[in-house]
Amino acid sequence: MNGENRDTVRRRNLTALLGHIHRAGAISRADLTALTGLNRSTVGGLVGELAERGLVEEGEAVGRGTPGRPSPLVRPRRDGIAVVAVEIEVATIRLATAGLGGHIHHRVQVDRAPDRRTPDATVEDLAELIGEAVQRIAPGAAVALGVAVAGIVRQEDGFVHVAPNLQWRNVALGELLSARLSRPLPIHMGNDADLGALAEHTRGAGAGADNLIYVASEVGVGGGIIIDGRLLRGAAGYAGEIGHITVRPDGAPCRCGARGCLEAETGEWALLRLLGRRADNEREAVEHVLREAAQGSAEALGALAEIGRWLGTGLADLVNIFNPERIVLGGVFARAFPYLADAVLAELDEHAQDPSRRLVTVVTSTLGDDATLLGAVELAFDALLADPQALDALPAGAP
Amino acid sequence: MNGENRDTVRRRNLTALLGHIHRAGAISRADLTALTGLNRSTVGGLVGELAERGLVEEGEAVGRGTPGRPSPLVRPRRDGIAVVAVEIEVATIRLATAGLGGHIHHRVQVDRAPDRRTPDATVEDLAELIGEAVQRIAPGAAVALGVAVAGIVRQEDGFVHVAPNLQWRNVALGELLSARLSRPLPIHMGNDADLGALAEHTRGAGAGADNLIYVASEVGVGGGIIIDGRLLRGAAGYAGEIGHITVRPDGAPCRCGARGCLEAETGEWALLRLLGRRADNEREAVEHVLREAAQGSAEALGALAEIGRWLGTGLADLVNIFNPERIVLGGVFARAFPYLADAVLAELDEHAQDPSRRLVTVVTSTLGDDATLLGAVELAFDALLADPQALDALPAGAP
Repeated sequence: MNGENRDTVRRRNLTALLGHIHRAGAISRADLTALTGLNRSTVGGLVGELAERGLVEEGEAVGRGTPGRPSPLVRPRRDGIAVVAVEIEVATIRLATAGLGGHIHHRVQVDRAPDRRTPDATVEDLAELIGEAVQRIAPGAAVALGVAVAGIVRQEDGFVHVAPNLQWRNVALGELLSARLSRPLPIHMGNDADLGALAEHTRGAGAGADNLIYVASEVGVGGGIIIDGRLLRGAAGYAGEIGHITVRPDGAPCRCGARGCLEAETGEWALLRLLGRRADNEREAVEHVLREAAQGSAEALGALAEIGRWLGTGLADLVNIFNPERIVLGGVFARAFPYLADAVLAELDEHAQDPSRRLVTVVTSTLGDDATLLGAVELAFDALLADPQALDALPAGAP
Repeated sequence: MNGENRDTVRRRNLTALLGHIHRAGAISRADLTALTGLNRSTVGGLVGELAERGLVEEGEAVGRGTPGRPSPLVRPRRDGIAVVAVEIEVATIRLATAGLGGHIHHRVQVDRAPDRRTPDATVEDLAELIGEAVQRIAPGAAVALGVAVAGIVRQEDGFVHVAPNLQWRNVALGELLSARLSRPLPIHMGNDADLGALAEHTRGAGAGADNLIYVASEVGVGGGIIIDGRLLRGAAGYAGEIGHITVRPDGAPCRCGARGCLEAETGEWALLRLLGRRADNEREAVEHVLREAAQGSAEALGALAEIGRWLGTGLADLVNIFNPERIVLGGVFARAFPYLADAVLAELDEHAQDPSRRLVTVVTSTLGDDATLLGAVELAFDALLADPQALDALPAGAP
């Protein structure tokens, strides 16, 4: 913990207030007073300052069902600061601009032609899309960029060590993108599943759970971990590679080079392998299996129970390690949960230590395919909301 | 983040300073200024206040090898506040009193007769030992009690769900002990391996590594995890049960009821099982195996390599999940490391994702058998050093 001078207190309080307003979307002065422990006049003064800066506005007073005067409702200004978030997928790029409070102003999804999937072409296309998005926001209102990549990303500078689906290796994505942006923006990059965890924690199935594991199967299997309300990043940002914990030492080869990884035993390929199926379009083939399961196919249900078993083994490890309140399943795991649940819960019962087992619940994602992109929004706001100094860099008056 | 009033700033700064002094043992005012970012006169005033409260004293000025005036050295007062730490083992109780800065004033180790190992008898004996220890410290100077138990302990109230070696189940240890103490003290309880992690991080082989995994084999296999400098506790304090992650699904039965847990494949019993040996005194039998290995016994070395393989599998999971800077091995793992290392590192190479693998180093405990007890000291001080309010509860003047 660092010491602090008196003149940092105001900034710290402003940031704390802004964080509460961002997470709540709209909140009464009275609730802000209760949440921050500050007195009423201090909160009034700070809200006034945030309003002067064009960040929030006060609506009409609302009664609270408790004695006392109705308390004015504070909400983020629609035309206040905004962030740009992008998600780089193999065949598409998704982009959103969002304001404080998480409101999505605008979103775009564009297909990527096969010849535009190299790092250089991707950066070109991203820079153009981001430039357009920034233009669409009030000039100067864009304060940060959040980028989600399905790969191992260095937190410090957005260097992508490996992104298997994109077939990228050692790409200085943060640096390349920074050089290309027509308007400089702080860039925050993260792993797709880490950002899914962040979004589910802030606005999805993980809301209210400060200790949370998110595990999703998309093409690969990824995960993100929230501890005491904060995303686990590790020493360099590589934490949360849940897809590569070993659940079956003599198991199937994984594309990472090892054997028996959670991904190799529970991912889309594992399901198709168990059924002896090959498919050009794995995504479609997996959805077909889910439809068969819904119709009661013993073959499909058997394969999904096997997936559930190994998923449960991995989740039990995580329950023993983290003592989380909640596990949120995303992607195929969420859609297949009705057919996985029995096996998953049986493994948890067997392998998780009893006190931790009793405390944890397993739920499915409520944000679905949007989780990653919304997580990139939260990542971009996080830096602002965690750092009182960052406020000074904001536009000084209303836009 | 909560808001704060101006009058909390002083307390926060005092706490921050005290934390630096505690961890450093002795530190110059100039270094405190640099570490806290406060200005020199503020640091001078705060150090003065800590000195008035009898917590620290200033020694003669030291030169710093840099331009400028020599800076006075601040250190904890030997007769200032102290904590009492106890470690409950099957056949012994260890106790230490320690001051700020971690200096051990006094320590005791007493044998436990077989009929004194029930919860009630243990609490009686603990209360007596703690009472004596508190008497030995300057009256009123004892500010907290830290207790280490080899079991699953609820953070909130020190309820022990299960302590397998002690053969305890559902013991309200915190409550029982609190009722028995002749002088009330805040009680902080934790799992033995969690506290080992805390100690190695603060003063041992993990110093300087803010993201750290500690794994130790004593009777069982336990672990503790430090993230961004703080002990991972989970939703209720049960986190870090590394001994029960599954490394070999079809493996040996574990005393937890599951199969193939890290403990079942790498603990003392696993080693003796691999060698087809039974022993009344497992500890001695294991030390005998280590001596055989030192003499080049192929049988002993083969069994240890097998232990290393499964240990490496488990550690690779943890590297993928946490992206730690350092792994500290304790207990038998530390003493056996020369014979385990090749297998452990080979598994890490195979199963840990490359960027995380390259960043982590594996070292052995430097605190040895003292790690847990010293961790209980740090746990007791942690509450004080994390909570600016706690300072107000301290004795107001010099003892």
